[in-house]
This record gives sequence, C-alpha cells and structure tokens, in this order.
Amino acid sequence: MEELINRVDVAAGRAEADLVLKNANVVNVFTGEILPADVAVAGGVIAGVGSYSAANRVDCAGRFLCPGFIDAHIHIESTMVLPGELVRMALPSGTTTLIADPHEIVNVCGAAGMRFMLDASENLPCNIYFMLPSSVPPTPYETAGASFTKDDMAPFLGHPRVLGLGEVMCFGDVVGAQGAIMDILPLFNKAPVDGHAPGVSGAQLQAYAAAGVGTEHESTTFAEAAEKARAGLAILVREGSAAHNLTAIVRGLLDTGMPTGRFMFCTDDKHLDDLSRDGHIRWNVKMAVDMGMEPVQAIRMATWNAARVYGLRGLGAVAPGYRADMVLLNSLKQVDVAAVYKDGRDAGPLLGALPAFVPSGPAILHSVKAPRVTPQMLALPAAGAVPVMEMVPYQLETRFLREEVPTAGGFFVPNATYTKLCVVERHGKNGNVAVAPLKGYGITGGAIATTVAHDSHNIIAAGDSDADLALAINRLAEIDGGYVLVRGGEVAGEVPLRVAGLMSCARAEEVQAATGDIIQMAAGMGIPYYIDPFISLSFMALPVIPHLRLTDKGLFDVDKFVLL
Amino acid sequence: MEELINRVDVAAGRAEADLVLKNANVVNVFTGEILPADVAVAGGVIAGVGSYSAANRVDCAGRFLCPGFIDAHIHIESTMVLPGELVRMALPSGTTTLIADPHEIVNVCGAAGMRFMLDASENLPCNIYFMLPSSVPPTPYETAGASFTKDDMAPFLGHPRVLGLGEVMCFGDVVGAQGAIMDILPLFNKAPVDGHAPGVSGAQLQAYAAAGVGTEHESTTFAEAAEKARAGLAILVREGSAAHNLTAIVRGLLDTGMPTGRFMFCTDDKHLDDLSRDGHIRWNVKMAVDMGMEPVQAIRMATWNAARVYGLRGLGAVAPGYRADMVLLNSLKQVDVAAVYKDGRDAGPLLGALPAFVPSGPAILHSVKAPRVTPQMLALPAAGAVPVMEMVPYQLETRFLREEVPTAGGFFVPNATYTKLCVVERHGKNGNVAVAPLKGYGITGGAIATTVAHDSHNIIAAGDSDADLALAINRLAEIDGGYVLVRGGEVAGEVPLRVAGLMSCARAEEVQAATGDIIQMAAGMGIPYYIDPFISLSFMALPVIPHLRLTDKGLFDVDKFVLL
Repeated sequence: MEELINRVDVAAGRAEADLVLKNANVVNVFTGEILPADVAVAGGVIAGVGSYSAANRVDCAGRFLCPGFIDAHIHIESTMVLPGELVRMALPSGTTTLIADPHEIVNVCGAAGMRFMLDASENLPCNIYFMLPSSVPPTPYETAGASFTKDDMAPFLGHPRVLGLGEVMCFGDVVGAQGAIMDILPLFNKAPVDGHAPGVSGAQLQAYAAAGVGTEHESTTFAEAAEKARAGLAILVREGSAAHNLTAIVRGLLDTGMPTGRFMFCTDDKHLDDLSRDGHIRWNVKMAVDMGMEPVQAIRMATWNAARVYGLRGLGAVAPGYRADMVLLNSLKQVDVAAVYKDGRDAGPLLGALPAFVPSGPAILHSVKAPRVTPQMLALPAAGAVPVMEMVPYQLETRFLREEVPTAGGFFVPNATYTKLCVVERHGKNGNVAVAPLKGYGITGGAIATTVAHDSHNIIAAGDSDADLALAINRLAEIDGGYVLVRGGEVAGEVPLRVAGLMSCARAEEVQAATGDIIQMAAGMGIPYYIDPFISLSFMALPVIPHLRLTDKGLFDVDKFVLL
Repeated sequence: MEELINRVDVAAGRAEADLVLKNANVVNVFTGEILPADVAVAGGVIAGVGSYSAANRVDCAGRFLCPGFIDAHIHIESTMVLPGELVRMALPSGTTTLIADPHEIVNVCGAAGMRFMLDASENLPCNIYFMLPSSVPPTPYETAGASFTKDDMAPFLGHPRVLGLGEVMCFGDVVGAQGAIMDILPLFNKAPVDGHAPGVSGAQLQAYAAAGVGTEHESTTFAEAAEKARAGLAILVREGSAAHNLTAIVRGLLDTGMPTGRFMFCTDDKHLDDLSRDGHIRWNVKMAVDMGMEPVQAIRMATWNAARVYGLRGLGAVAPGYRADMVLLNSLKQVDVAAVYKDGRDAGPLLGALPAFVPSGPAILHSVKAPRVTPQMLALPAAGAVPVMEMVPYQLETRFLREEVPTAGGFFVPNATYTKLCVVERHGKNGNVAVAPLKGYGITGGAIATTVAHDSHNIIAAGDSDADLALAINRLAEIDGGYVLVRGGEVAGEVPLRVAGLMSCARAEEVQAATGDIIQMAAGMGIPYYIDPFISLSFMALPVIPHLRLTDKGLFDVDKFVLL
C-alpha cells in the first residue's frame, strides 16, 4: 500500500518521482495519438504522464516513447542460450516481455524442464511468462524424453508467471474431440490457450476454436489469418528465423483495412545471428512500418494488443499504473532504439549487472543417454524405388519421393545427391536407430549430428559415411548434446549444448561465434547456401509438418499420419 | 467435458446442433466485417459459424446477427423494479449482460443488500454481474443506512458474478491518497475498478488512474473523455434517463477518428418509461448510428469492447466458444430487434416462463425507520439572505444562491417560487431532520416525498405546507418506502417501493403505470415540465454533485466540501 500511496503522491505532484523522462513524444496505444509529455516513474511503475520534474531525469529531446515490446510466442530454447542470455540480447532492442512455450526442454526433461525454465528466468530485467506445453509427447510415432500430462501441469497452474496452455499442436485430436488434450483443455477454460493449426479451415477451424483455443501463429497467408481472426482467434504475426509470415499478413491488413486490434507479433523461433543483427520484436515493427503501416498501429500490435490477449494487466501502455517498461525510439520510421527502460531503470546498467545463471542437476545437464552406435548399425538395405525425403529450399515442408538410390551389396550408399539421414533415440528409453535417404542436403566428406531435433530432440545426423555418422553421434553423447561436425574421420567442430542438449551455458556471443564457425565448416562440405546445416536438419524428425519425416521409429507419412 | 466434446462435434459437423440460425448476416466484432453464415449452437454456446443445419433451425433471411448487448454500468435500483423485471424489460431490446453497481441498496442495507441483489439476479436469462460498491457511506456529511467496508467486501470477492470494485466516487480521497479507499483498492489490483471522476483532469486525473482505477463514465464532453482515455481509462459512454453524454462523445469520436476500442456504452440510470419506449443499450447503438458511426463499430462498443474491459471471457462475439447470446436485427440503420437469443434460446418464451422473485426479510422489506414527524419539526427560521438551492433545468447540478425568502414570524413560508425541502434520516440512526428553501421546483398545494434519495436514501420531501410535508413523510414510513404525493391534506397517490425503499415487488408494467399516474398528479401541482418530480428531487440530497445540497445533517457546500 505504501507503494500505491507514493505512486499517487508522485502523480499528483506531491512527491518526487524516482525518474522523469522529460520532453518525450509519447505513443498512446489507447487513442492512437503521439503527444508531447513528461513521464514520471515511481516504484518501477508509471505514476503520471504530463508535466513532471525530478532530480533524476532524462531529457528525451522529443524522441518517441512507447511501451516495451512483447514477443507473444517464443521458444527460448531455439536461441540455444539460457533465458538470461536471451534477455541480454533482446532487451536492448526494446523487448521487455516474452511469452515463452518451453516445449523443447519439456520434451526432453518433462516437468523438470518446466521447473528449470521458471528458475532460469527469475529476477531478470524482462517479464518472462510461460505457456505450459500442451502436446508432450507430440505424437506416438516417436520416442520423446518425457511426457507432460494434465497431472504434471497441475503444480504449475498457480505460478504467477504461468499464463495458460501452450500451442495445441495436436489439432487433429482437438478437431476430432479425442485424446488427452480433451482432458487438458477444461483446465484452461479461464486462461489463454495458444493454437497451432497450419492450414486448418472451415468446419475444422470452427471446431478448433470451439474447443477453447484462443490464438494462432501458423498462418502463412492473409486469407488464412483472416479466416482464423473471424473465428475469434487472436493472430500472432510471426516473423522469426524459421518462419517469415509478416509480409503476407501485413500486406493483407493494409490492403483490406481490417482492424488490427486482434493482431500481434511473435518470433516463434529466432536465432542469435538474427537477434543481434535485426533486434527482436523491434524488427517486426520495423518491417510493418516499412510496408506502410502507421507506426502507432505497428507499435500497438507489438505491445497493447498482446498484453490484452494474454491478460497481462499493467503491461503494454505508457500510462499511469502501468509498469515502466518503455522504449525510446529515435525515429518512428526506423524504429531505432535509443534507450530501453525496464521497471523504470535504464536497461544498459541493468544488463551489465546481470548475474550468470548456473544450471545444475543431472536431468538437465546429462540428458543424452544414447546407445553407442557402430557404423554397422546405420546400414540401410535398399532395392528399387525407396521412400526418399527431399528438403525444399526455404521451407520446413519436405517432399515425399520414391526413387532409386545408389546401392552397393544391397545397401544404400550416400553421395552428393542422396545423403544418409539417421535418427537415434537418446533419452535412454530404447536406443532406436532409424535410417533413410535424404535429398537436397548435399553434404560430402563427413557428417553432422545434433541433439536439437524437434520436437522429441533425439539425435539427428546426416552424412555420406557411416563411420563419420557414428563418430558424430557418439561424440554428441560424450559432450551431453549440442552440434558436432565430423570431417574425414575427425571431429572438426562442436558446439556443446549441455542444457538438455538444447541450450548452452556459455554467453550468447560465444555461442554465436561457435555456431557461426561450425556452420561455415558445414557449408564448405557442399550444403547449399539456402539450407541451414543444423536448423534445417533439426526439423527433419518433426512428424507434424508435411510430408515425410524420419523419427527414431522410422519413416513417417505425415499426410496419412502413419509410420511406413 | 461432455459439453466440450459435443460442442466440438457440432462444430465439426459430426453432431447435430441444438439450434441453427440459418442465413444470417453475422456481425464480426473481430474483423469488422458482416459475413453471411449459419450459426450453430450447442449447450448454450456457439459451436460454429459457417454452413450448418439442424432440425431446430430459424431462417434469419439475411437479417443481421450480432452479439448480445452489454450495459457496462447500471444501477438496477434506479429502475425501481427487481432484477428479473428489469430483464423482462431490457432483454427484448437485445441486452443480455448487465454490469450492475448496487450501491443504492447497499447504502440502505449494507452487505444484506449486496447479498439480496445477488440472490434476486440468480438464474435469469441475462448475465448480471456486479461491481462491489466502493464508497458506502458516500461521505461523512450525511447519515447512511449502512457502511460497506473492506471486511464487508471480503465474502463477495470470490463470487463468480462479482467482477471488481464499483465506481470510486471519493475521487478526492483517491487523488489525495487518503481514507478507507486506499485500503480497499489493493484488494482489486487484479480486477476491474470503475471510476467516477467528473471533471477531474491534469495531474489529479493521472493520480486517479495511477491508483488503479480503470474505467470512467462521468465524461460530459469529448475533451474530458479523450483526456481520460489517454490516461488509460476505458470510457463508458453514458446515455440513460438521467445523463445524456452520448451525443457529445460520439461526435468527438467521429470528428477525430479516435479508435473506439476503449469506448463502450452504459446507461448508469434508466427508468422504465425510457426502457419501454427506446429499449436499453440498443438505444445507445441507435443514437450512435444515427450520428453517422459505422454500425459495426457501434455494435462493437455495445458488446466486445465492454466484454474485454471487464474480463468477460466468452461474451461479446458471435464466434465459436462464445455464449450464444445474440441479437437479430432487421436493419443496421434502425437497430430494430427482430429476436434475441440468450444461451441459444429464444428470449420470448424464456421471459414468459420467468418466475417472480419474492423478497423476504426485515432488513430488505422494512428498511424505513424514520421518526414520526410533526409540522412543527419542519419549521425553518429565516431572516435576511439565506442559502437557497436552485434546481437547474435538465441538469443534476444545483445553483448555490443567497436570497431573501418569504417569512412569517421569523420562519420561512414556501410559495410557488420557494419550496420547502426536507431531508429526514430514515435508517433508525438519529432521526435527523434538515430543512432548506428550494427554488425552481414550483410545487403548490401539497407535498411530495420519497425514500429514493441518492446516495444515502434518507427521506426527501418537498412541498409548500408543513402539514402536507409531515403527512407525506409519515405515510412513507407506513408503506416501507416509495413515492408519496399529498394534495390538500390527503394522500392522493403513492407507489410503494418496499425493497429497501427503492424497488417495488410488483411487475414493471404496474410500477410504470403507477409512477406515470403520480408524476402526472405532481405535474398538475405546478412542477415545470422539465423537472421530473421524483427523480430530480432524489438528487437534491447527493453531496457529491455541485454546488449546494441538503443532507439529513444540513446544507452542504459541495465546492468547499463542508456543511454550512
């Protein structure tokens, strides 16, 4: 109550603010106006917007002050750094709130992974909220490290940073009103529920929305986004490292004049290179403004709209009673960030003083329990036309081909056209090994392996030699996961990702440099420039994206939803 | 969960809907579009919007289907009928949700009044939510029937139909960070808090918002509404029987193009005559459309916007998963209601089957505990210029005059210009009697008295004869409150309002007829046409509206906030 009284006293001019940002042009998300004012902060909260002064003041010299940006949907694990490191990378570009779905680590470690992410994101200068992963394991057609059931969710429901249910990927079950998800959904009938329903339309979409799903971030066209918006789903316009949906959707918004109140921004997955070059949600705003969207509207999508949909009281506006999470922009056109304030404190010094989080515990740090693999275990009998996965440039989809592949003695022999793809169960469950030909990857002279392989995060490896493949796979187990590159029979590069085989304990800059090095090495082995050697590979085991995938249980026909 | 599965099955087309509204033009509050579709209902909830059929179907023949209307702020007591009767009057014009602040009855009966309103609004074909009265008693300058403290509020906080804190009228205390309200506000830091801050501006307004107040419904000009909206307050555009703010605010919205997302509609007080003639929130929509607002935008203000601000999940849209509260309009221009569906059921038969609610208990039914008054007790010594309240046509404000009034033997003698106004404490606390001259009321040949007198609801009476005044006041106590009219020494008319002296147990039509009769009688006694004999009178004791008021403790200077 003292804080309340002090805030009111500051607002009324009876007490001195902790900080006054003077002479700002304040972006008002409520009225769509930009109005000159001073902003007074008390106890980390905005007390007043008007005419204020204080000993501790910053002259904004007419620059534009807007609310801190919100990423409405991100998988932190995809940055390959811990939450604190992501904050160190994202906060300077204006992101003050993340809504994270930790389904990568939960697929590996279950509830221990959920708990770890909550712990690792405590006391950071960024509001990190979580949606509980809804679909772990993702399918019965692969071996996941853990399950995360209704009962596993229960202890997390009351956590102040747990908002609701993470992306409901099993849209087939939802639309069919079947499976475990139908038990889970009623738990969240008063909370936000994120959707994931690429291409779902018509009566199927109505059924998906009727089940209580409230958002969607998989739309790739405006028509798809508009239909989902009509069905009441709030639309997360996704622009990250893996998916680029912003141009199509914003183009449609601009062309049709559809109200943007139900649209917001997310990255889903964003890698360090992109983060450090473009910034984070700031980049979504910039792209939208470049396309001709009114800056205030784009900023509202990045702030207030997301705060409303996720029920984040006190976030998303520069107004009295709101948290003093603010971004100062030099220009609305460039969306170039001059300063960021988190809880009314300058982000620069805050980040400098950020303590490193030190992970512990075997469940998190020793999650790779793969069998020792011999080259013989990777042999693939082949005769005549066999199923072949083909990578598609710039897309996550694969093609399902049936082609003759090169053989010797009845076994597949990889070359520059046909790579050998292997998936090895690594959670200590059954040691499954699955092998298939992969077209379009182009690697020669070695192998690449990683424990980052959506969504079950078994080991996935691709190469042209069984010996190199086996070496790469076995090395991954030794270093508790990460990236490994083997060239000519030797481990030539590696990026350890000891946290569940997904995230590094190192600083973002080191991870970025090491990743850059290993990718460059991989590119030198014949992988085309439009394929990211590790990230593209990490989707080849994901049995929910068309058309053909390889899990530890074998080849999976996504269209028929059956193992071959 | 069965309901969920059935809903999904209906949406997906596997099961038959309870009801299908076919061939509607559906107003989509998310996208601002109007799109032809069928709407399928299952278990009282909308399952799908698309192409559906069922044995139970209604052909909408292209008429416009929109969400049920929401009154974001109403004092039910002001209709003088019980909640069920109000629903019977309001539902046919499309109102399916009321957000009520029962501060009238709580001022009389305290927590028992709050409980009564919850009980009396159970199981009605209308969502009736409540905001807990925040300012009871309203001021220390009058004798209220009860107090409603922080501790009194506690038992109601978890009630599923209690949303938050009712209009915080003690804006002086809030801005000054003082008084009981500063203890109450923190209870509601995660709930909606309604404001009431007429004319509050600048740093005072910032302080009011910084305290956590989230809405405001007292703006009389667009400039005032816009400043409040900028400060983050959601704006309730009020158009009721007592206050008419819609034209000014909607004019400003149309002229400036300010986004309407933070604006909604309320009536605050609306009487049966106006309800039965114009309908309820439907009238606000109609007025806005008549002024040139896009119908979809006006409908959104009446539905979705209010649902968002008050956190009413599943209300305010025609979309899968939303409650099947819908209004079918013949025309968007006329806003003429063809049919109303509550929980997917036709309102007509629902209202026909509505059981009467029978109030009970002495706290509610025998609330008038006034002293027996003699004419001698109403004598008012007067000499020279004395304070005089003057009524202002069409406004709640009064003028504070100092004038010589007619006297005889040193006592005020009323005439056609100067009426005698009396306030008698009626809660059994102290039997206070206060008397003052009133200008502009014009009554001759008798007296009028009522127990409806905001906000403490003591007896207020006005007349030109002490004998008639005493008779009217005493008669009120005999009938447990209501309206009484005395003409020439006889009780000529009365409307009993036995429920806390505020509401009738009778049907709305009877109350309306009886009220019409007594008002007509009153008009025949010289009260000018622009003054409602009872309602205008009922505000003369309200010490929070400028400039001069009479409470049971005496004359109150509102500007200086002191008893004279």
